[in-house]
Amino acid sequence: MKIAVLGASCTQFGEHWDKSLRDLLAAAELQALHDANLNVKDIGAIYTGTVCAGMVAGQMHVGAMAADILHSNCASMTIEGACASGGLALRSGIAALESGQAEVVLVNGVEKMTDVSSADITQILVGAADEEFEHFMGATFPGLNALITRSYMNTFELTRHQLASVSVKNHKHATQNPLAHFQREITISDVINAPMVADPLTMLDCAPISDGAASLILSTEDFAQHYCRRHRDKKIVYIIGTGQGSDSLTLACREKITEFKATQIAACQAYKLANIEHDQINIVELHDAFSINEIITLEDLGFFPQGQAGLATEQGVTSMGGRLPVNVSGGLKAKGHPVGASGVAQAYETVMQLRGLAGKRQVKDAQIGLTHSMGGCGTTVVVHIFQKG
Amino acid sequence: MKIAVLGASCTQFGEHWDKSLRDLLAAAELQALHDANLNVKDIGAIYTGTVCAGMVAGQMHVGAMAADILHSNCASMTIEGACASGGLALRSGIAALESGQAEVVLVNGVEKMTDVSSADITQILVGAADEEFEHFMGATFPGLNALITRSYMNTFELTRHQLASVSVKNHKHATQNPLAHFQREITISDVINAPMVADPLTMLDCAPISDGAASLILSTEDFAQHYCRRHRDKKIVYIIGTGQGSDSLTLACREKITEFKATQIAACQAYKLANIEHDQINIVELHDAFSINEIITLEDLGFFPQGQAGLATEQGVTSMGGRLPVNVSGGLKAKGHPVGASGVAQAYETVMQLRGLAGKRQVKDAQIGLTHSMGGCGTTVVVHIFQKG
Repeated sequence: MKIAVLGASCTQFGEHWDKSLRDLLAAAELQALHDANLNVKDIGAIYTGTVCAGMVAGQMHVGAMAADILHSNCASMTIEGACASGGLALRSGIAALESGQAEVVLVNGVEKMTDVSSADITQILVGAADEEFEHFMGATFPGLNALITRSYMNTFELTRHQLASVSVKNHKHATQNPLAHFQREITISDVINAPMVADPLTMLDCAPISDGAASLILSTEDFAQHYCRRHRDKKIVYIIGTGQGSDSLTLACREKITEFKATQIAACQAYKLANIEHDQINIVELHDAFSINEIITLEDLGFFPQGQAGLATEQGVTSMGGRLPVNVSGGLKAKGHPVGASGVAQAYETVMQLRGLAGKRQVKDAQIGLTHSMGGCGTTVVVHIFQKG
Repeated sequence: MKIAVLGASCTQFGEHWDKSLRDLLAAAELQALHDANLNVKDIGAIYTGTVCAGMVAGQMHVGAMAADILHSNCASMTIEGACASGGLALRSGIAALESGQAEVVLVNGVEKMTDVSSADITQILVGAADEEFEHFMGATFPGLNALITRSYMNTFELTRHQLASVSVKNHKHATQNPLAHFQREITISDVINAPMVADPLTMLDCAPISDGAASLILSTEDFAQHYCRRHRDKKIVYIIGTGQGSDSLTLACREKITEFKATQIAACQAYKLANIEHDQINIVELHDAFSINEIITLEDLGFFPQGQAGLATEQGVTSMGGRLPVNVSGGLKAKGHPVGASGVAQAYETVMQLRGLAGKRQVKDAQIGLTHSMGGCGTTVVVHIFQKG
């Protein structure tokens, strides 16, 4: 497979008190069209990942809003799979192109989360777990991820210091990302001594509640060839692999909670389609809503043997300048996590890196990048692989 | 295009006080697998249309639940586009097959609406309109559809009797459908004298609030050929056309509200792909959440000139035994309208008709059927065309 990325955009992530869901979505859409130098009439279909709008603002049908903003009559729909929604919208856009349903698609991710209290949004988000068997019993995502962390720490030799080094690294990366929610460094001691959320996870092990949107414009290879004749200086990035896996909605139904089968399945499919091995990947943007997620995901993607990603992180292997820079955008932890937008924002970062236009956070000679989006605790996972054109 | 329908199922529609969202979804999924005589392992991806679960039950991530029920690790996502969600899930399943992302897909539609009051569900559903410009100003879907009705009555010669004949016809059809929410006849006088909801629409011009689920199993043509060798007595139905259009989220932004551009666009695309004219269609299942919707849709699909569908309905042209039987299932009005499920249930009815297995409501010699799903007031529309194999 070979899908061209012709445009990419991302709004500032953060607390946008003065902007509505529509404002954020419009900003991302228009900026992506501008970046691609394409017209609304070129867009054949729109796929928008979003999660909370119905529950936060009473607004469903966000896919229709995405078309409405552009005064477009093209096909448009909302895609939801909790925090993987943006990645799923990307996968749906690819399917539309490869099926012939469209030649050019617009993929959006958007979320406006700060219009309700943190307590309310936590209650809303746990709807991505099992309402009857987890939410109703009092579980929240921080609580479920704390269980995962404890189980992992009991099974492998992950130290508190190693775990905290995920957040420290991602905050350091975000200091070079002007779009990041938090652009300041934190220390291991900050993480460990921050207010406890769900033992052993403190506030600084958890991604923030953010507002934001991101968009991509994708096309078939045929369209991209014609396009390149008109836009000779455009750096095209290609998507060469996609994969998706699922696992039980409840953690209680898993054989193990120290690895996520859905990530392993999604990665395996994506590597196969892209015809590459994991060691050919130069940059990774992965789901680090909780610090433990980054550790487990690095292992599930095949980058480290089980139980060893913590040490590697502590040693700087995944830091800017290390062998495999991970979440150079700042990740969900520091760039921010407007849930529906995150998967598309990961793709935006990867595209900017592969275009060589990532400014101060540019990873040298990046040729192949991987994005990983996860909904729930390893329940829905989608992986994409990008290559410099 | 040629996509095979190997399995189809639909639960009883109605008020399922004793069944959860999961129960309904599980029943539809398992029945579809049974109907197709396929195994869970054959399913490569799942697409589930649903709308209200987050707001009614606090359960998002219903796509993940759909995979979880089957203990499947395959790709699964939720598709939302208000009342068109089921139709959009079907369109997404087709894209997955045609793109090569899967060889066999499961498409679901599900909704559990009766766990909250009618007033609450009306408030939830208006989230499919524009929250800021319609909902916030006090509009509801009955109110918006009443505006459409008045505008249509002022423009064309639609009588109250003609409008009421939509509901009377659909209720009569539903008497032959054991899965229908309402299986009893009503009269023109019943409709006109029912409690007023939004003038001129009475309660019997409006579809009910229902619970229910429906599923389809689709495959590529290649898979279907192998499948047919193993299942020689299976009656295969093919999907030969799909189309989708969008229009503004708010009614106020339309040039006209007496016709829906999104339906015209979706139908045009579907007819073109199927390489047929509208007069080759034998049966139609269309969106009749409000009686006026059926009138306008019949015209937008090309079956009648503008302003004439009311008279045709009154004359029985669209009744069982007429030239073009419409909503022989009972339609959303009488079969019921669990919003996310409706689009898939329309496909179920069409498949059963084209298999010749629709029992007492069988339309004789039906060869080609059309389904039409609409989200919002003509905002998101998806059309599919089915052909007997």
